[in-house]
Amino acid sequence: MATLTLAEAEAILAGAKAKVIELGVKMSISVVDPRGDLITMFKMDGAPWRTPAVSRGKAVAAASFGTASGKLTENSQAPIFRAFMAMEGGHMIPGQGALPVFKNGELVGAVGGSGGTAQEDEDCSRAGIVAGGFSESA
Amino acid sequence: MATLTLAEAEAILAGAKAKVIELGVKMSISVVDPRGDLITMFKMDGAPWRTPAVSRGKAVAAASFGTASGKLTENSQAPIFRAFMAMEGGHMIPGQGALPVFKNGELVGAVGGSGGTAQEDEDCSRAGIVAGGFSESA
Amino acid sequence: MATLTLAEAEAILAGAKAKVIELGVKMSISVVDPRGDLITMFKMDGAPWRTPAVSRGKAVAAASFGTASGKLTENSQAPIFRAFMAMEGGHMIPGQGALPVFKNGELVGAVGGSGGTAQEDEDCSRAGIVAGGFSESA
Amino acid sequence: MATLTLAEAEAILAGAKAKVIELGVKMSISVVDPRGDLITMFKMDGAPWRTPAVSRGKAVAAASFGTASGKLTENSQAPIFRAFMAMEGGHMIPGQGALPVFKNGELVGAVGGSGGTAQEDEDCSRAGIVAGGFSESA
Repeated sequence: MATLTLAEAEAILAGAKAKVIELGVKMSISVVDPRGDLITMFKMDGAPWRTPAVSRGKAVAAASFGTASGKLTENSQAPIFRAFMAMEGGHMIPGQGALPVFKNGELVGAVGGSGGTAQEDEDCSRAGIVAGGFSESA
Repeated sequence: MATLTLAEAEAILAGAKAKVIELGVKMSISVVDPRGDLITMFKMDGAPWRTPAVSRGKAVAAASFGTASGKLTENSQAPIFRAFMAMEGGHMIPGQGALPVFKNGELVGAVGGSGGTAQEDEDCSRAGIVAGGFSESA
Repeated sequence: MATLTLAEAEAILAGAKAKVIELGVKMSISVVDPRGDLITMFKMDGAPWRTPAVSRGKAVAAASFGTASGKLTENSQAPIFRAFMAMEGGHMIPGQGALPVFKNGELVGAVGGSGGTAQEDEDCSRAGIVAGGFSESA
Repeated sequence: MATLTLAEAEAILAGAKAKVIELGVKMSISVVDPRGDLITMFKMDGAPWRTPAVSRGKAVAAASFGTASGKLTENSQAPIFRAFMAMEGGHMIPGQGALPVFKNGELVGAVGGSGGTAQEDEDCSRAGIVAGGFSESA
């Protein structure tokens, strides 16, 4: 299984952080591997305490299904999402804010945000992917 | 309580695997006894990490209710399904992809797939039942 | 992260199964990837229902720490093991019966048994590693 | 898998109840199948609310390991027992009070008591097995 290196994840995180600062929102950003395990993250000063966990939960969803976590919302009442959320103790969130990360067409991780609007969360994730030179789709 | 033997479960798994390979999808298949306990399973190379647990969860639903797990989806918001899912920590999924296994009219287990479309998941489960010489209904 | 392929995991499982049959014990064997996710497993006819989960739990421990799960027992009351067991809902068992699997010096998974004596469980795991042409140490 | 019929479980319960009344303790008795699922049980007037769950938890232990639950206590800090207890959400109690039930040498269930001393709990379980014409060992 290919996975982001720490250096790559740090590049994504730096790009996302620049966008968070530009937007002036109190946000957390999490970068995970394809299994949903954390590689690196930050919580801005004053961001709500729930945002680290929520940003990672969205990233887990994006990594697990290889798609923007926001695309899962419409069908989020489907049994598989409810079951998966229960299995993971809530640490899988099919809500907007995270994007999968692809390198040479292969899923290598995901990045998710929490603390802004759902669109801002996603925009910051996207900024990280662009800054790191990755793609959000295969 | 009658139950699939390991040899019978392996025959079902082999039949399902042949179909998975024919379809060319990255999938996991689980075969369970009538109580939902695993007898045997496989995860194809590259299949998402969620698929072993999801394939078993669907098989648990099919075994527990003696019907195709997809037939439970329409009513999956009913309290009994939501409660049962919670009791089992998510490991009971009333979503399409698993079928009960009957032998001489008696429920002896279930087989479930995850990783393809819901229809592909079910098709592979069915191929296993047919290959093993069993029936998906009493 | 390198990982066992399904074909490699099946070779390990077959080798372990031959040993289980030779010993005449009712046992379950699980083969997992380095993250502890199931690749393939079997439960012998008549093996206790707890054995699939216990065999996998031991394999999770061996994969997570890259050592024989039995070597973890002496220190199993250490906070990290008690905490990790709690985090995983019990699905990490620092007890004898599982071995890590190395290929060219790299950890690629683990195999664990349950249902025999702890030594028999480990012996069957070892037989699988040998049959598959792998090593239990780097 | 052989299992106690309801009629057989009721005979065990009746025998245990006679002993509970003779001892004059406020107790609960649970009879389970080999998988640990409840078949029948009673809670005496005034018995503590925890006793139904505890009597079943001991019976789960006796059924799962095929031995008196009290024999498991000495080794109850072993990783496998702590892990199994966690997996089952506490519903597996390796403490004295329950006995496995054998019929023609085959495990068919277990009976457990809670609310008296540990010895009284076990004595009532034993009285049920004797009254039902079963054995507590293979």
